[in-house]
Amino acid sequence: MEKIRIGIVGYGNVGRGVELALRQNEDMKLVAVFTRRNPFNVKILTDNVPVCNMDDLDTFIDKIDVMILCGGSSNDLPSQGPMVATMFNTVDSFDTHAKIEEYFDFMDEAAKSDNNVSIISAGWDPGMFSLNRMYDNVILKEGHNYTFWGTGVSQGHSEAIRRIPGVIDAIQYTVPIKESIDKVRNGENPELVPRQMHRRVCYLVVSSDADKAQIEEEIKIMPNYFLEYDTEVNFVDKETFKKEHSKMPHGGFVLRSGTTGEDNENKQLIEYSLKLDSNPEFTGAILVAYARAAYKLSNEGVVGAKTVLDIPPIYLSEKTSRELMRELI
Amino acid sequence: MEKIRIGIVGYGNVGRGVELALRQNEDMKLVAVFTRRNPFNVKILTDNVPVCNMDDLDTFIDKIDVMILCGGSSNDLPSQGPMVATMFNTVDSFDTHAKIEEYFDFMDEAAKSDNNVSIISAGWDPGMFSLNRMYDNVILKEGHNYTFWGTGVSQGHSEAIRRIPGVIDAIQYTVPIKESIDKVRNGENPELVPRQMHRRVCYLVVSSDADKAQIEEEIKIMPNYFLEYDTEVNFVDKETFKKEHSKMPHGGFVLRSGTTGEDNENKQLIEYSLKLDSNPEFTGAILVAYARAAYKLSNEGVVGAKTVLDIPPIYLSEKTSRELMRELI
Repeated sequence: MEKIRIGIVGYGNVGRGVELALRQNEDMKLVAVFTRRNPFNVKILTDNVPVCNMDDLDTFIDKIDVMILCGGSSNDLPSQGPMVATMFNTVDSFDTHAKIEEYFDFMDEAAKSDNNVSIISAGWDPGMFSLNRMYDNVILKEGHNYTFWGTGVSQGHSEAIRRIPGVIDAIQYTVPIKESIDKVRNGENPELVPRQMHRRVCYLVVSSDADKAQIEEEIKIMPNYFLEYDTEVNFVDKETFKKEHSKMPHGGFVLRSGTTGEDNENKQLIEYSLKLDSNPEFTGAILVAYARAAYKLSNEGVVGAKTVLDIPPIYLSEKTSRELMRELI
Repeated sequence: MEKIRIGIVGYGNVGRGVELALRQNEDMKLVAVFTRRNPFNVKILTDNVPVCNMDDLDTFIDKIDVMILCGGSSNDLPSQGPMVATMFNTVDSFDTHAKIEEYFDFMDEAAKSDNNVSIISAGWDPGMFSLNRMYDNVILKEGHNYTFWGTGVSQGHSEAIRRIPGVIDAIQYTVPIKESIDKVRNGENPELVPRQMHRRVCYLVVSSDADKAQIEEEIKIMPNYFLEYDTEVNFVDKETFKKEHSKMPHGGFVLRSGTTGEDNENKQLIEYSLKLDSNPEFTGAILVAYARAAYKLSNEGVVGAKTVLDIPPIYLSEKTSRELMRELI
């Protein structure tokens, strides 16, 4: 059997997650990893796979079926995405919700220019959470959507803390508020402000001469990031930080609480949740499944940008329709 | 706007659920209800919609876009399904897991003979649970699937009890065993026999001269239905039964517990669950969403039988791709 030939563009946590996920998918193989860094300084986990410079992408046309884009959504994907899509089928987990339409249009134009398929925003949120919001909303037309995140690390919030003078290292956990989830589960349809949905828990390593009270205050009043939430600030030493806070867990909940009946007398609840030890490895696994879909769609002559909402679920699997009917339906 | 014209074939609990769901979907309208009974004896909830005999189906060709088949999977759908599919696009919730392939083939042939689309097994299990098993398995390639049902009414088990002499009425609740779900949630990947996954709770009304001990014993040793489970048998009077056991709640859990990482060191858990006050109304709501998909697919020239795995999620919605991108992704 011909394996689907995969390239990874950008080798951070998600790129490594994709690399590991490929090991669990026997119908695919990793052909090359592309980086903006000096390739000699990038050590990957797979033997006999080259690490190349981004400038050499075009030498892999005809050698790679799908490029999985693993750069960041703020700085990398808006430029890298359309560039790669003019040469290869692509999959990414672009996650700036407010800019998805704009990004879709850029990717659509780029992909169409070379008859490629580009599946965008195929992580878990956006991605699997979007899919669940979609299915939930077409079934329970009358109801309320709720999305809670965590417990998990928010890179954006962690970075915001690290920018404060005197902070050496920092991590921020977003924690969903269980009492509010339970209200939703009970069909109470609560109106929730940010403070009632999540709280924020920070762990910091600071320099010895730092003013801890001042730093704590600075965090708690930071608008958009912390001001609207109850925030807990903990100071720990470097060793504790390294030992207890070097994993990247995450997760979350998508709920739809709706009603049906002659007089909306019946409560109906749909809940989807994730509990992840490794956020980037889970994201990587989703990207790999959608890379398979991109490959199949492209072989059928489909071109342009697509979201997870456009993809028939069956395209994600290496199995036949019959096998899936027997095993999963 | 032209509304999608819907017919309901079979007016039991699910048919009524479809009728109620149509009220929540403004792009659709109910054109007629078809029954095998005497139409004069069937009272529906919607004014000015005719109740017709099944024999008059062919007079509605060109007047109905999609027929939603609401008959039972054991006796009605295997014959009704292919018959209706030779005249109309159809959607159903055929739920005999072991016979889905066979049913698919019959429906595929029937639908193709008249260029129709037939979406089969589009309830919640099979249906939404199948979709979740599908997405779960392509993401977490290494892992275990678990499906728990309940707390909810099993019609099959209730009927089995009602067949026992001396039993006037009976209902059986399937109850998932929380300790086992928690083991799955903890990533313990337990091997579970039926008794460890579900228990069965029965409420019976019996005749005054019935031997209760004998009936209880007869239930508990019934193979396939009760013998493999811990079963609780309760005797109640007619009034209590009517007051407390006339609803049709149901629900369940689909879990996939998997691992990722260099050495499978990271546990990842996906969980989907339903908590339904009304099983037939929820099933009806799913059928209506898939009726929209059948309509759209048929307009695009697609023909033949399809399962939920074949349908791009976006086909379920009345909204545009742009609206969905903005609101749900």
